Amino acid sequence: MKICLLIEYLGTHFSGWQKQPHRPSIQETIEQALFQITRSLIPIVGSGRTDAGVHAKGQVAHFTPTDHPIFQRPRQLMHSLNSILPPDIKIKNLSQAPDHFHAQRSAIAKEYQYLLSWDCKPNPMLAPFCFAPKIQLHLDRMQSAAHYLIGTHDFASFANTNRSYTSTVRTLYQITFTPHESHLTIAFKGSGFLYKMVRTLVGGLLEVSKHSYEPDHLLTILKQKDRRAGPPAVPPHGLMLNTVWYPQEFLLFPKERISSNDW
Amino acid sequence: MKICLLIEYLGTHFSGWQKQPHRPSIQETIEQALFQITRSLIPIVGSGRTDAGVHAKGQVAHFTPTDHPIFQRPRQLMHSLNSILPPDIKIKNLSQAPDHFHAQRSAIAKEYQYLLSWDCKPNPMLAPFCFAPKIQLHLDRMQSAAHYLIGTHDFASFANTNRSYTSTVRTLYQITFTPHESHLTIAFKGSGFLYKMVRTLVGGLLEVSKHSYEPDHLLTILKQKDRRAGPPAVPPHGLMLNTVWYPQEFLLFPKERISSNDW
Repeated sequence: MKICLLIEYLGTHFSGWQKQPHRPSIQETIEQALFQITRSLIPIVGSGRTDAGVHAKGQVAHFTPTDHPIFQRPRQLMHSLNSILPPDIKIKNLSQAPDHFHAQRSAIAKEYQYLLSWDCKPNPMLAPFCFAPKIQLHLDRMQSAAHYLIGTHDFASFANTNRSYTSTVRTLYQITFTPHESHLTIAFKGSGFLYKMVRTLVGGLLEVSKHSYEPDHLLTILKQKDRRAGPPAVPPHGLMLNTVWYPQEFLLFPKERISSNDW
Repeated sequence: MKICLLIEYLGTHFSGWQKQPHRPSIQETIEQALFQITRSLIPIVGSGRTDAGVHAKGQVAHFTPTDHPIFQRPRQLMHSLNSILPPDIKIKNLSQAPDHFHAQRSAIAKEYQYLLSWDCKPNPMLAPFCFAPKIQLHLDRMQSAAHYLIGTHDFASFANTNRSYTSTVRTLYQITFTPHESHLTIAFKGSGFLYKMVRTLVGGLLEVSKHSYEPDHLLTILKQKDRRAGPPAVPPHGLMLNTVWYPQEFLLFPKERISSNDW
């Protein structure tokens, strides 16, 4: 049996998901909270890394429980974790999963969103989540360009591939533009994402918006399969991991959510 | 001629609107930005004070310009102010107003909102704006109780009246409850609000929610006109000044907004 966590975090004050020496990470902060409850060092595995400053509404992680009795009381465990965790990390749900579940390897799709401010100064309430590119955003041009990205492509030009990937081919199912009064939300749903891929794709859309690229130039860049041909990545603070999807056999978080108020 | 500002701010790191010695206030931060541009100390007058930690989406303030040429170029002035101001304060609009306009005295109505988390740990993205009362929120009971508050009443029991008020009578036009997935928004529209009035009204609604009061007990408290009869106030960080209304003769911020990207 494994235990599976649905996690929301504000990434501003963390060095990212991944544990690293001398810098606070989401992973380590949760592992320390688990240690405080169980007195065991239990490693947790996330669906993927998020960079320093990147936020998550729906990160998923798993771990293998010990025989500590708290693991028989999931609601109490979630409540204890949330009381220990700082205000910028919350366990939104906690459930049991079968042994063959793996937060990263079992994932079949993910959605990220990126927020762009229309105005060259973001609204103060949104500032931690929103990048102000200081250019005029041409929604129509960005939408035309997005069509060239949908589908299965080698995204090597749009990702930092210094990490060892078996393949840089990924499938982008959907790119959705939702204009709000103060900002534009661009959501990317795909089979998986390479390192810095979403931020580099947004960088490409911005080049199109400011007429440095024509919309179909993104296709030319894709074909070159070379990071040096691609646009610069936008900053991390506009990025949010929204959702991770798993096969239906893992019905991890039923609608009837475990709320920490429930008991 | 006066100049009128529409201001948004995240109140977390400020001691409130009002200037005070040795502590950063919204008012002083804007006055300092004006000084940096004009080299004159120009006092600004807000529609009302907001307490330490309280936020605003639509605070209004006015000032009397000097003969500095920047005051003939409102867009440039707004842009310069926004580049100097920290990310947690933004001038959303700037317009001219007639001499008899006064941000506080000309105001005819205001709307505040208060955010309450359903869960005993607020979502990390909302944590700076949302109070978690750690009780079960009974929407129906709070709505019943709110009926007793609507109308013209002496709100002395629901406000800290150590400030010198000519009268503690105010009119509450509307209390609107909007449930969201993670939190409940309660909006209060009224002719004006006494010091800590909204936070004490929310405190009263929470007492009703947890069955310490019956809904009609709020009427009994109103009739006592004594702060000691009233409930405790909730914390400031859940409070936001949404809108200030002025008579139609002051069409301050036409829909065609001055955006800092416009020029």
